Amino acid sequence: MSIKTTSAVPALLERFNQIRKRTEIICSPLEPEDTVVQPIVDVSPPKWHMAHTSWFFETLILKPYLPGYEIFHPQYAYLFNSYYNSLGSRVLRHQRSTLTRPPLREVLAYRKYVDEHVNRLLQELSDEELEQFRPVLELGLQHEQQHQELLITDIKYIMGTNPMLPAYQPQPAHPKQSIATPARFLEVPGGKYKIGYQGSGFCFDNELGVHEVQLEDFEIMNRLVTNGEYLEFMHDGGYGDFRHWLDEGFTLVKEQHLEAPLYWVKQDEEWHRFTLYGLEKVDLNDPVCHLSFYEADAFANWSGKRLLTEFEWEAATQAYPPQQGNFVESGLLEPAAADPAKEGVQQLFGDLWEWTYSAYHPYPGFSKAPGPIGEYNGKFMINQMVLRGGSCATPESHIRATYRNFFHPDKRWQYTGIRLATKK
Amino acid sequence: MSIKTTSAVPALLERFNQIRKRTEIICSPLEPEDTVVQPIVDVSPPKWHMAHTSWFFETLILKPYLPGYEIFHPQYAYLFNSYYNSLGSRVLRHQRSTLTRPPLREVLAYRKYVDEHVNRLLQELSDEELEQFRPVLELGLQHEQQHQELLITDIKYIMGTNPMLPAYQPQPAHPKQSIATPARFLEVPGGKYKIGYQGSGFCFDNELGVHEVQLEDFEIMNRLVTNGEYLEFMHDGGYGDFRHWLDEGFTLVKEQHLEAPLYWVKQDEEWHRFTLYGLEKVDLNDPVCHLSFYEADAFANWSGKRLLTEFEWEAATQAYPPQQGNFVESGLLEPAAADPAKEGVQQLFGDLWEWTYSAYHPYPGFSKAPGPIGEYNGKFMINQMVLRGGSCATPESHIRATYRNFFHPDKRWQYTGIRLATKK
Amino acid sequence: MSIKTTSAVPALLERFNQIRKRTEIICSPLEPEDTVVQPIVDVSPPKWHMAHTSWFFETLILKPYLPGYEIFHPQYAYLFNSYYNSLGSRVLRHQRSTLTRPPLREVLAYRKYVDEHVNRLLQELSDEELEQFRPVLELGLQHEQQHQELLITDIKYIMGTNPMLPAYQPQPAHPKQSIATPARFLEVPGGKYKIGYQGSGFCFDNELGVHEVQLEDFEIMNRLVTNGEYLEFMHDGGYGDFRHWLDEGFTLVKEQHLEAPLYWVKQDEEWHRFTLYGLEKVDLNDPVCHLSFYEADAFANWSGKRLLTEFEWEAATQAYPPQQGNFVESGLLEPAAADPAKEGVQQLFGDLWEWTYSAYHPYPGFSKAPGPIGEYNGKFMINQMVLRGGSCATPESHIRATYRNFFHPDKRWQYTGIRLATKK
Amino acid sequence: MSIKTTSAVPALLERFNQIRKRTEIICSPLEPEDTVVQPIVDVSPPKWHMAHTSWFFETLILKPYLPGYEIFHPQYAYLFNSYYNSLGSRVLRHQRSTLTRPPLREVLAYRKYVDEHVNRLLQELSDEELEQFRPVLELGLQHEQQHQELLITDIKYIMGTNPMLPAYQPQPAHPKQSIATPARFLEVPGGKYKIGYQGSGFCFDNELGVHEVQLEDFEIMNRLVTNGEYLEFMHDGGYGDFRHWLDEGFTLVKEQHLEAPLYWVKQDEEWHRFTLYGLEKVDLNDPVCHLSFYEADAFANWSGKRLLTEFEWEAATQAYPPQQGNFVESGLLEPAAADPAKEGVQQLFGDLWEWTYSAYHPYPGFSKAPGPIGEYNGKFMINQMVLRGGSCATPESHIRATYRNFFHPDKRWQYTGIRLATKK
Repeated sequence: MSIKTTSAVPALLERFNQIRKRTEIICSPLEPEDTVVQPIVDVSPPKWHMAHTSWFFETLILKPYLPGYEIFHPQYAYLFNSYYNSLGSRVLRHQRSTLTRPPLREVLAYRKYVDEHVNRLLQELSDEELEQFRPVLELGLQHEQQHQELLITDIKYIMGTNPMLPAYQPQPAHPKQSIATPARFLEVPGGKYKIGYQGSGFCFDNELGVHEVQLEDFEIMNRLVTNGEYLEFMHDGGYGDFRHWLDEGFTLVKEQHLEAPLYWVKQDEEWHRFTLYGLEKVDLNDPVCHLSFYEADAFANWSGKRLLTEFEWEAATQAYPPQQGNFVESGLLEPAAADPAKEGVQQLFGDLWEWTYSAYHPYPGFSKAPGPIGEYNGKFMINQMVLRGGSCATPESHIRATYRNFFHPDKRWQYTGIRLATKK
Repeated sequence: MSIKTTSAVPALLERFNQIRKRTEIICSPLEPEDTVVQPIVDVSPPKWHMAHTSWFFETLILKPYLPGYEIFHPQYAYLFNSYYNSLGSRVLRHQRSTLTRPPLREVLAYRKYVDEHVNRLLQELSDEELEQFRPVLELGLQHEQQHQELLITDIKYIMGTNPMLPAYQPQPAHPKQSIATPARFLEVPGGKYKIGYQGSGFCFDNELGVHEVQLEDFEIMNRLVTNGEYLEFMHDGGYGDFRHWLDEGFTLVKEQHLEAPLYWVKQDEEWHRFTLYGLEKVDLNDPVCHLSFYEADAFANWSGKRLLTEFEWEAATQAYPPQQGNFVESGLLEPAAADPAKEGVQQLFGDLWEWTYSAYHPYPGFSKAPGPIGEYNGKFMINQMVLRGGSCATPESHIRATYRNFFHPDKRWQYTGIRLATKK
Repeated sequence: MSIKTTSAVPALLERFNQIRKRTEIICSPLEPEDTVVQPIVDVSPPKWHMAHTSWFFETLILKPYLPGYEIFHPQYAYLFNSYYNSLGSRVLRHQRSTLTRPPLREVLAYRKYVDEHVNRLLQELSDEELEQFRPVLELGLQHEQQHQELLITDIKYIMGTNPMLPAYQPQPAHPKQSIATPARFLEVPGGKYKIGYQGSGFCFDNELGVHEVQLEDFEIMNRLVTNGEYLEFMHDGGYGDFRHWLDEGFTLVKEQHLEAPLYWVKQDEEWHRFTLYGLEKVDLNDPVCHLSFYEADAFANWSGKRLLTEFEWEAATQAYPPQQGNFVESGLLEPAAADPAKEGVQQLFGDLWEWTYSAYHPYPGFSKAPGPIGEYNGKFMINQMVLRGGSCATPESHIRATYRNFFHPDKRWQYTGIRLATKK
Repeated sequence: MSIKTTSAVPALLERFNQIRKRTEIICSPLEPEDTVVQPIVDVSPPKWHMAHTSWFFETLILKPYLPGYEIFHPQYAYLFNSYYNSLGSRVLRHQRSTLTRPPLREVLAYRKYVDEHVNRLLQELSDEELEQFRPVLELGLQHEQQHQELLITDIKYIMGTNPMLPAYQPQPAHPKQSIATPARFLEVPGGKYKIGYQGSGFCFDNELGVHEVQLEDFEIMNRLVTNGEYLEFMHDGGYGDFRHWLDEGFTLVKEQHLEAPLYWVKQDEEWHRFTLYGLEKVDLNDPVCHLSFYEADAFANWSGKRLLTEFEWEAATQAYPPQQGNFVESGLLEPAAADPAKEGVQQLFGDLWEWTYSAYHPYPGFSKAPGPIGEYNGKFMINQMVLRGGSCATPESHIRATYRNFFHPDKRWQYTGIRLATKK
């Protein structure tokens, strides 16, 4: 983590309270019953997310820095540690869903208790005193924002795999009328590019190790791949033709009988998709969403194009600075169609995380911090692929052009999509 | 099912309302969060039990017999059918825990809706009209009582596998002071015995096919095996000595590292057990509980005795008519120590289901009813062992000397215990 | 084991040499490659069978009774112990197929070495000296005969799951011309029957505990169910109709997409079956073979009849003493059609093991011998069903009316078939 | 594939015959029984390797190019296709071990038949006619060499997991006396490097797409990591300290109870390792071998160094041209200690495949050939890591500085080792 901010305590406190509040707003439409389950191992119970993010502040801020702090409950460290070996034993990940207690009510009390104590700690602080734990506090806020995005994707999975397909929120007030935006490929010149975070704000350790890469000329698609384009792939027998697929992806397709993106349902011979406001018809101009890397790569092969590497993606943001994106703040919680009136490369930020054909590996010179913070990113640098750009479930203040998200190539429950590239 | 009762409608209606109410009383100490989960496939979410028993009445009584009845929700048949192929497709058993919706609140509304309509149906009925569905209604009530017992065992499992070991109810008011009752073996003479239900009340189809069996003389233990006796087996290395065990049982012991009954926890070098009122020290005079058939059989082998067959058990009730038992109505929800002052064979009814060394197979002349009722018992007559006598979680009005309960030999989450026999 | 014979040493030695020789004859058509594999866990590599049966004699006869005997190889005890915990650790069952060494050649040398030493031991013996280990020697011979039958079923599986469907032996010289034998049901009167072995020859411990059972009148089918009758069940949609099936059986049918007996293959719209002499058309009059208990029971339910219990089966042999059977000595290695000219109940002995609706449990008074012999039968008395009568792969001298074979209800690779019963 | 050779037919024919012969020499010490098994899914039966490589020539050379060629057996295409979807259905990979037929004898006849026909085809050929299939023939030879290496590693696994630990060959005549070579780190200057195959001989398609990469200065270890160094890691508790490990690697370590490299066995308190000539004491100066990527990376972290990327490795060969290596031709079949007398970077070629921290992904501009050849490499470009340099089981003529081998990060049965790098 590299943190070199200079803002004073009050602003930080306000931001802390806003971000913490936001988590509770996300969960407010839920029934207590919704907050317990874990239908697949990737999804964590919402109640667990709410407690785990609080445990992070309690363990890394309050216990070491607030004199006389008494922990809320002696067993919570065991229940709500996610994966930090440095911080002791814990409930196994796949058993999170068996924990009906503490109930939501007590988790909310836990959040309140932690928030009050963080407020008490910060209110009495000079900027000098703040400096000793400010990086960890900042990390805690970024961490909470990451879990806010996971909360949305996990809630969508919980709702979307219930046969009743319950809505999480009403349809946004002004339903969009989408218009087609023709696909174009825009040039990005080859050469030497600097990769990694060079600013003075917050970034994760995996963005550090700024280094140069040598790229060849390539062209980038001006928008994300649409449902209409993906339907062509489907109608052309894309899921049944091994030639487009990586071998492990094709094996998965056959084993799981995949034939469409996650959440797609055929009703009365027409494709629909589950959204957080219920089932709706597939809009041909919307970006296609909830795909695995395997599906993204197979589509690219079928189309005669390819995915970008993460370096090409980052270089493209230098050639085409990202425009304002469709982030969680829009309240849409689904990707939106591109705008035919706009020039340049759209949707680089927001809408959908874009699968790149780059493994999530350390940059040159990457090093892990000692202690629990060092377990945050580095130990996951194998078997996962990098995604870039944030999504409609990402807080706007959370994203950067250098931000590296990562998932295993078979995962589909995140807001993931396809951006194509081609040789010049 | 054999049903030959003559009671009038009002009494039946009162019984219906009492039994239905009882289910809700059992669930009343639960948080909504407790009602969703399924930590192992054997355990069903309490919310599911409550809805499923209502679906039974809706499907088999209200839809066919209440003119103009409108079902509560079109998807509930899919969500809450347990295993009736005759009644259509359904949520797979192991996926019951992913269903956060309908929430508990709506399940309670469903119960109310069904109850009101059953009340409406019954209130307008003559005894003659009642006769056409009375057997199914009676079966529905027996079915609800079976699920009441499962609710208690499932709630115990949900609480007992939570690291916080939450209590379901306060400790009963007058904590018992247990006294040892010496083990004695009482004679049951051999000869021809009539097996199966011969009365005029309700019984399940698996109790029919009354037939004679020829038994040899044997002796039956005057009470259930105690924790103290079982601890001797444990201290003697019982879990580690293959000679006592059936091969599949010993494999299980090694794979799952079993070394004590379910819910036993060693704290400060002393054995405790989880009860529905929290963790308590193991009482040496209480019956040992939550054992698999494998453990029961291994203990019997170690002790130089054996388990009874279900026929011997039923014959014993003819020689020693069961005394009043410790059923769910006692509120104890745990087995109680035998009474040294009592003569004869104690604890045949209540306290613990007793594993017999009899497979759950059809009696001679067994036949399944046509339609869904025929799926109630017969299709499970393989790979399961018979248990007899009811437990501290069984409603007293639900038990009979001919009642055949059945579970796979590895199951431990029911209130199961050991009764020994020996040759004369 | 109960052994009370008085024959002299020479006859025993000749029998020993004949039985040992027979195992090698069974394996003589095999390639060395055939003797290594284990396509499913139930099937053991033929090489393993040959070594294991030798290990039995080496361990239980030569080591304790031949002074100065030196074991053939120090690691063979580890490699070729099957399941005797008393005799030390061993290769796990499912890993038998990874053992390419010792090669067949050395296993045959091992057999020769053991045989020579048993011969040496026996040749110098008085009848009195023989008595001390004669029961174990007899058990070793019975054990070898059991493995001879397993060798045939295992070889059939190895050949029958190879896409090349290689023949093990040429078609028997005079191909049979089968004729239909009408099904008839013959009366067996109810009453008290004595069950268990009462003779003076060899029997297994599981046949002891002679006891009486009380049976009702029933009728037994005069022959085994035929392929033609089973095809009617198949054509009537038998595999797709849950009403005929035990629930665990129907689950298996769906999971494994079962639609015909094991080894049945449809070619050019006609059903064929793999035999040890290659693929041949299904003969409608032959007994249907290679069925699980689930299939046998489902067929019985579909036909409106039922399977016998093992007690009824044994009683039937008292009413209808078994006629000469089609055993391994016929060289057919497949069941043969019934003979329409014959009276009474045919095929009770030989042709096919008949599934009974009786769990493999101990008879009253059953007790295990101390030491390894006690592990022979008793520890398997759970979750298995009894089969009676022997098959076309059983040595004729091995069968008795009281003989209890046992397999899990899903097993199909043995020569198993269906005998029906009905109430009078 | 890029193939631009000009050698005449006779030389090619001689090479064909030599390479084909070599496969049979590798298998000549085996018993027929050794050639059937597949103890883990990664290992293929030696018999299968021998047949599969012949099927490759039959399918891609003889069938299309030898007029009137009759295939050896109609089912071999089904039995011996590995993973080419273009070439039809096939035996599933994990079922290769159930195929006892065709026996080794017939597989050798198949090889002879194919060889004779390839000889006939080539003998009558002009250089011009050869050109139309020369690239595929060359690929077939490279493919056969790859399977020769797999044969050795698979044979080692088959022998090394047999409790008898049989030797495949006698210990080489002059047992080596190893001497320590101190570790040194030699500079490789940063800058732009050209990556990929630029020569005119054979290379695989995954080496094409020559492109530039920008590297920073780094230092490379002068030899492979030794057993002695790895033992220090082990003695320091390396397998038990999560801080050194990637998370998925540490999970594996705990699940599989790993505590040493594959084939290491502790006997009498001393570490031994299984080699193809039996068990021998671990030599501290030999390179440590049979490690997963996880182990290699954990060791690097523990040592405060890191693994190279595949680009750094290839750049290092430009700075330090590889010296003569210990390849399969040495007959050693184990890595040998470095030579303290040598300058520069040793063991880049031969001894052990070196894990790099680079995912096996396509180079820029990578494209797959149409048809079955296109399935050779590209479809595996996910979830695997690149290894470089060949091993003591690799034919010398098979390696190049640009050669990219690839395995999943958990694999240990190949001859894999560790080369460290560090920042300047």
